[in-house]
Amino acid sequence: MTNKRVYNFSAGPSQLPLEVLETARDQMLNYEGSGMSVMEMSHRSSTYQKIFDDTKATLKRLMNIPDNYKILFLHGGATQQFGAVALNLMDKGRADYVVTGNFSKKAAQEAAKFGDVHIAYDGKDNNYTHIPTQDELDIRDDIDYVHICQNNTIYGTEWNYVPDTKGAPLVADMSSDILSRPVDVSRYGVIYAGAQKNMGIAGLGVVIIREDLIKPHKENIQVLAEYDTMADKDSMYNTPPAYAIYVLGLVLKWVEKQGGLEEMEKRNIKKAALLQDYLDQSDFYIYETEKGSRSRMNVAFKTPNKDLDAKFVKESIEAGMTNLKGHRAVGGIRASIYNAMPYEGVEYLLQFMKKFEEENR
Amino acid sequence: MTNKRVYNFSAGPSQLPLEVLETARDQMLNYEGSGMSVMEMSHRSSTYQKIFDDTKATLKRLMNIPDNYKILFLHGGATQQFGAVALNLMDKGRADYVVTGNFSKKAAQEAAKFGDVHIAYDGKDNNYTHIPTQDELDIRDDIDYVHICQNNTIYGTEWNYVPDTKGAPLVADMSSDILSRPVDVSRYGVIYAGAQKNMGIAGLGVVIIREDLIKPHKENIQVLAEYDTMADKDSMYNTPPAYAIYVLGLVLKWVEKQGGLEEMEKRNIKKAALLQDYLDQSDFYIYETEKGSRSRMNVAFKTPNKDLDAKFVKESIEAGMTNLKGHRAVGGIRASIYNAMPYEGVEYLLQFMKKFEEENR
Repeated sequence: MTNKRVYNFSAGPSQLPLEVLETARDQMLNYEGSGMSVMEMSHRSSTYQKIFDDTKATLKRLMNIPDNYKILFLHGGATQQFGAVALNLMDKGRADYVVTGNFSKKAAQEAAKFGDVHIAYDGKDNNYTHIPTQDELDIRDDIDYVHICQNNTIYGTEWNYVPDTKGAPLVADMSSDILSRPVDVSRYGVIYAGAQKNMGIAGLGVVIIREDLIKPHKENIQVLAEYDTMADKDSMYNTPPAYAIYVLGLVLKWVEKQGGLEEMEKRNIKKAALLQDYLDQSDFYIYETEKGSRSRMNVAFKTPNKDLDAKFVKESIEAGMTNLKGHRAVGGIRASIYNAMPYEGVEYLLQFMKKFEEENR
Repeated sequence: MTNKRVYNFSAGPSQLPLEVLETARDQMLNYEGSGMSVMEMSHRSSTYQKIFDDTKATLKRLMNIPDNYKILFLHGGATQQFGAVALNLMDKGRADYVVTGNFSKKAAQEAAKFGDVHIAYDGKDNNYTHIPTQDELDIRDDIDYVHICQNNTIYGTEWNYVPDTKGAPLVADMSSDILSRPVDVSRYGVIYAGAQKNMGIAGLGVVIIREDLIKPHKENIQVLAEYDTMADKDSMYNTPPAYAIYVLGLVLKWVEKQGGLEEMEKRNIKKAALLQDYLDQSDFYIYETEKGSRSRMNVAFKTPNKDLDAKFVKESIEAGMTNLKGHRAVGGIRASIYNAMPYEGVEYLLQFMKKFEEENR
């Protein structure tokens, strides 16, 4: 029990900017003199439509999204898109998936329900500590698309280049690093992301799709997965996840106020380096993620043994930090340091790590 | 622009109890000493798990849900269930749909993508002012289920009995009247509802399903539509719409504190009668919904002409009421008076209606 806010290193849902929460709180009973909460607004009302349109416009501005891309705000997070991408884009029925961790594997498994999926690379032999180079990718000819997961939360890896796909559209799950740095959207066919890491709260999937990839839907798919229907209806075939879109809007405004994605990238480089440089010089902590494949969003490492991992987690909670326990698939420690984690939070963790090392080496 | 909260007659998303909003506001920065907002909580944390479990337990208690039913909290609202019900329950590939309005029609159209759908009744000839009697239902033998939409928001009708389905499981979309009165859950195979009317905010679909209807999923459906997977994982195959589930929990606690579904029913009967009795005796307003088919949640009526309808809507906004405009499919006026609409709100509307009649007759 604490009156203070903790430093929350959760991989997702995760820490939000304090200003965003304060605004949501202050507007809870009466949004800008409308006499009601955003939670209570008809999605067909002009007040809500403005929130929706502004959110889309801010995302377009922040990510510099070209005019020939559509932005969709859909139900269900990234997992819903694992299947939707395959159901919408598989014309030839063939797609290549690069497996760099848990979620890219799940995406590939889901897509394999709907077509011929080829694994262009699988990092299981190096325990997903490595992002493949261009030469390591076995991409087929004559496919509908290549799918990557751009940041792997469990293993703490991230793509630091845009792979060549031999002309096929590149589809990227950016759930855990969207908005953390500028990306050249024009190099992607589809970008999608669950909102609950860098964009807001769970229950919203953001899809950024090049218009020519929106084709007449197949007849036997659920309507919420039909990209053409959702694009035609501007994501309002049915009631959208309206409050989650509002929170996304607050987050985007916060990012813009901080200085946009360039500033986010600067901060994220600085925050990640603080931990990674220390881990590299330490002979106590074990940090196996390969240089060049490291994520700025999730830093996964270990102490010398499981008992110390558990002690680290326990003592970190007592020190006012939460969710530093590594994913059950890999154990150890994981610090998720998304946009909303301030530099001071990472510094605080670093001091704790140093002290823990001294006391337990 | 107003500092006061308005009476919000929106069909959905719709007015929430003030206490619910106040609690959400007060807990926004720090939920019960956890040091974080519910928005920021890992769905795998013990704090969030308790919110989730309590919400499920409260719903089970309030609706008196038998032990052989599972409760699922899913992404995507009722529209996602239109297809999911068909994809999961159609073993024989045959289902009968009763069309009593817009959403039951959409549900039937969606199900027809996945199997042989027979329309057991269609109210289009009476402009959906009538709920069919048992004798009017043409239910086939040897089908997987019968589907009804229990309350029709656009037309203001509601089933006031549970139809006999010749032994087939009854599937009911209760999006707009769930929690408004006690129901005997054991008479239904599946109950589902989008949360944004009587349960909270958009982006959450609640499914209450008899266990024997949860069968091994077909191979070619999206994972979020697999009832067996979602039941096995207790709705957490992926990150659930976590904040929407929290708001549902707040709403359920509020309903329980008011006295549960019996008390809700009493209030709803009283509120609906206030409007309906007045409309019946008025020779100004036109109220065509048949007695015996009338909804306690949505009262749809008209003034003598379209100009007066528009004037009514305009002046009602000036008087501090919103969203009284009828659905674009039918025009006129619609007052949605869900659980959260207090008696005083309906009285206030009634006084306005009387005055408007005097001034415009």
